[in-house]
Amino acid sequence: MPNHFADRLLAAIKEKGSPVCVGIDPVYAKLPADIRNMPDFGDGNNADSALDAIVEFCRIVIKTVAPIVPAIKINTAYFERYYGEGLDCYTDLIQEAAAVGLLVIGDCKRGDVGHSAELYAQATLSNPDFSGLDQMVGPDAVTLHSFLGLDCIKPFLHVCRAQGKGVFALVHTSNESAGEVQGFCNAEGVTLSEHLANLVNGWSGDDGLVGTSGYSSLGAVVAPRNADFAKKLRALMPRSLFLIPGYGAQGMTAADVAHCFKPDGTGAIVTASRSVIYAFDNPKYEQQASTNWVTAVEAACRDFAQDIAQAVGP
Amino acid sequence: MPNHFADRLLAAIKEKGSPVCVGIDPVYAKLPADIRNMPDFGDGNNADSALDAIVEFCRIVIKTVAPIVPAIKINTAYFERYYGEGLDCYTDLIQEAAAVGLLVIGDCKRGDVGHSAELYAQATLSNPDFSGLDQMVGPDAVTLHSFLGLDCIKPFLHVCRAQGKGVFALVHTSNESAGEVQGFCNAEGVTLSEHLANLVNGWSGDDGLVGTSGYSSLGAVVAPRNADFAKKLRALMPRSLFLIPGYGAQGMTAADVAHCFKPDGTGAIVTASRSVIYAFDNPKYEQQASTNWVTAVEAACRDFAQDIAQAVGP
Repeated sequence: MPNHFADRLLAAIKEKGSPVCVGIDPVYAKLPADIRNMPDFGDGNNADSALDAIVEFCRIVIKTVAPIVPAIKINTAYFERYYGEGLDCYTDLIQEAAAVGLLVIGDCKRGDVGHSAELYAQATLSNPDFSGLDQMVGPDAVTLHSFLGLDCIKPFLHVCRAQGKGVFALVHTSNESAGEVQGFCNAEGVTLSEHLANLVNGWSGDDGLVGTSGYSSLGAVVAPRNADFAKKLRALMPRSLFLIPGYGAQGMTAADVAHCFKPDGTGAIVTASRSVIYAFDNPKYEQQASTNWVTAVEAACRDFAQDIAQAVGP
Repeated sequence: MPNHFADRLLAAIKEKGSPVCVGIDPVYAKLPADIRNMPDFGDGNNADSALDAIVEFCRIVIKTVAPIVPAIKINTAYFERYYGEGLDCYTDLIQEAAAVGLLVIGDCKRGDVGHSAELYAQATLSNPDFSGLDQMVGPDAVTLHSFLGLDCIKPFLHVCRAQGKGVFALVHTSNESAGEVQGFCNAEGVTLSEHLANLVNGWSGDDGLVGTSGYSSLGAVVAPRNADFAKKLRALMPRSLFLIPGYGAQGMTAADVAHCFKPDGTGAIVTASRSVIYAFDNPKYEQQASTNWVTAVEAACRDFAQDIAQAVGP
């Protein structure tokens, strides 16, 4: 495996045959009844019991999707909900995913400056540097806010260079209220998202960040609402891989996201969370779910990977 | 104590006589030699030993500043550096600060949407709702990113209403690269920070958010670089309390921050971190530090509180 995040991600996408990523956003109430009904996992109001059930679920999902997709994205919110113990389970799941050959994106959306930013880079992206923890790894990449400018991103780029890791900076999101901030325009009609795209593009070419693939360790979180805007952002950040949330349960289709890719089929990775990990609750996978919930998750994951692979070419 | 964050904070400021807040940003290498030289705390490369030393330091600082200031601000980055155990120590320190009558601002700068935002609101602001944890409290307020619009803030405002808590949304920061994003201007010359100030002002008046003081549970993080901009932001957000970082080690003076206050002396709380908690390393407090480091921290805290109280009136 090359020791550069973008090169590694592209190699893993090629190996698995589809630029997709399963989002791990586990909520106790949505877990399969098979898990919630196990004797030790039955009390969702008890933090330990609920967290144990969630970890059991995540372990099975990770093993199930590992042969199909190149990467998973784990959102820290779902683990911080369980305080320190939850955060440690998040770290454990990173180790389990790495052990089965998955790349891991830590969706932590941190954003601070100065010494605080340096410590977040150590805490959330770097491999642990404390004595006795040298067998552990951090995630392969994390998501970050870009509102504070390069000061927030820079300490993470040091870790990218030293350890072959990556960063996805928030450029454009798909939530309902995103436009009220991100659609803010200058006199030339450039939106804040486009302005951030220009900044990210500038930062992404810095010394030691661009891999042999031509892509940078600095990517962007991009969830375009229409084809024209996707094409525009694609053109503004030629060196950046896009992390695209919003497929499936959030309503974007494969055709919508296809414009975030280059004609050669590279340039982005698409994430789906609920539509895969809770597929056992989707009538579409009723038949598989009647065997067991894992079969439904596996089928939804394969459909997702195939749907995106067909849409983006090459 | 009134059960509304802004009312509570204003009452605490009145009681202590100064609108100031000590920032708890502890780094092992900067701890007093007295602590680092203790047998159990001597190995900064060991996560447990380093964290124990940091917690010991924070406990003493909290007890020392409690009679002088109304609030402390704890930055989560410094605790997440130590993974799950670090996050639990952060929670423990919140309990200790609450027990000595300090308000606590959790400087976590989270920012996500949808279910993730709801879980962050539970994880970082709410009092724990799991069985067996009902004696614990969350912080009184947290800091949040505003880049994702109201979707990110809304779940936190629910907690504010239900539990008398507060939020400070990032509007304008003082770091070197802040301008490249926050100075982005529309055709009328309105900067992104001013645009966010208008949005925050709109959100801050929502049902159930404004206390008897006339201030909202939704405040703003504001670090103005000059008097005119401070006055402008003060006028744009009349209902919002400002959390002002950057005093002391970061270079802002009491005169700089005074413009963030209204003529009656209300409207903001000023934070200082390094200049107080590491005062024992400042030649100005050499004499106190020669007795012991705690005396230096106490003296620096008193000077800080007095400096701000004199500058802001009324």
